[in-house]
Order: sequence, then C-alpha cells, then structure tokens
Amino acid sequence: MLVKRNETEARQILPGVNRRILNHGGKLMMTEFVFKKDTDVGVHSHPHEQISCLIRGSGKFHLRGIDTIIEKGDSVYIPPDVPHGFIALEDGATMIDAFTPPREDFL
Amino acid sequence: MLVKRNETEARQILPGVNRRILNHGGKLMMTEFVFKKDTDVGVHSHPHEQISCLIRGSGKFHLRGIDTIIEKGDSVYIPPDVPHGFIALEDGATMIDAFTPPREDFL
Repeated sequence: MLVKRNETEARQILPGVNRRILNHGGKLMMTEFVFKKDTDVGVHSHPHEQISCLIRGSGKFHLRGIDTIIEKGDSVYIPPDVPHGFIALEDGATMIDAFTPPREDFL
Repeated sequence: MLVKRNETEARQILPGVNRRILNHGGKLMMTEFVFKKDTDVGVHSHPHEQISCLIRGSGKFHLRGIDTIIEKGDSVYIPPDVPHGFIALEDGATMIDAFTPPREDFL
C-alpha cells in the first residue's frame, strides 16, 4: 500500500515527542519519531525486533546499559526484549524505526 | 548492535544507484539507496516483505502495475512477491528500506 505523508498523522506521545506511523502491513511497520532537544523516551523494552536510524540531528542512544552518542545515519538493531532508550540532543532530531512484528499498540 | 554510518559502505549496484546496508539482525534489515536522476531499478519482486520510505527527493514508484509520483515522507508497503520498481526524478533521491526477513542476497 502506498501512503502519502499528508495522509499520516503525527501524534504527541510525550511532551516534545511526536510519533507518526509511516506505513505497516504483514509483519512490518515503519514509524517516524521527531524530538525536541533534551526529550527522553525513557529506557523500555518490547518483544518486537527494531531497527532505528537517525536521519536528522543527534542524540544519546541507550542499549543494554551503554549510552552512545549517535548522529545522522547511525543506526541500532534492538533484539526482542532488550532495554533501550533515546535522549535527543537537538531540536528536530528524527528517527526512522522499523519493527517486526508491527507495534499493534501503536495502532 | 549500534552501527555508525562511517562503518557502513555504499556499493554501486547499478550506474547511478548506491546501496548501503545500515543495519541488520534477527528478522530485520534496513538499507539506504541513493539515486541519480532518471535511474531506474527496474520492476522486480522477492519473497521478503518491504517498506520503503523516500526521505529525500522525488521519484516514480511502481506497484502492482500502477505508477505513482512519490515525494519526501511518502512510503510503500510491498507484500511478498509483489512486483515493484522505482525511477528517481531527482539527483540524490534517497530511500530507506526495511525488509523482513533480511535480504541475505545483499550480504
């Protein structure tokens, strides 16, 4: 299914954090998160596998207890149930996430 | 696994088309394709599910026999074995693709 961006809706999930479901189907979902500077999604985990790629800005990514500064083009693979989190270091930091299976909790 | 962009390598797969594996693990892979204007990847299919999101530029996406102009932020879910293709309409058009399972043929 082809989805135009203007058919999607950004939803504020935390102050300064907007989530947009770009597309989903079958066993895949792709989302976009846009952050204000210093917003922190908090360390969390879920059974879904995830790859996150930062396409704009910079931030601090937490994975398995280690914090790493990431910049545009850096990415992270997160296996099922592994704790991870992200703190944005710039306004407009933007992450593209892929999930398998889709995050039914986002729908 | 966290992967810095400068640890990844762009590979020219066709004249004017560069593919970069951003990350992969378990049942997921994320790639980036960067296109020169008028490059055409050709209609093709594969058993892997795919979501493609254009993050820069514009192009013509072919899905199940229908061509649609897509722009930055537009995306496409491609079920297994469904013919699809892309023609870039701008230099630097950039697509982020997610695949499940990973494209072993890219490794």
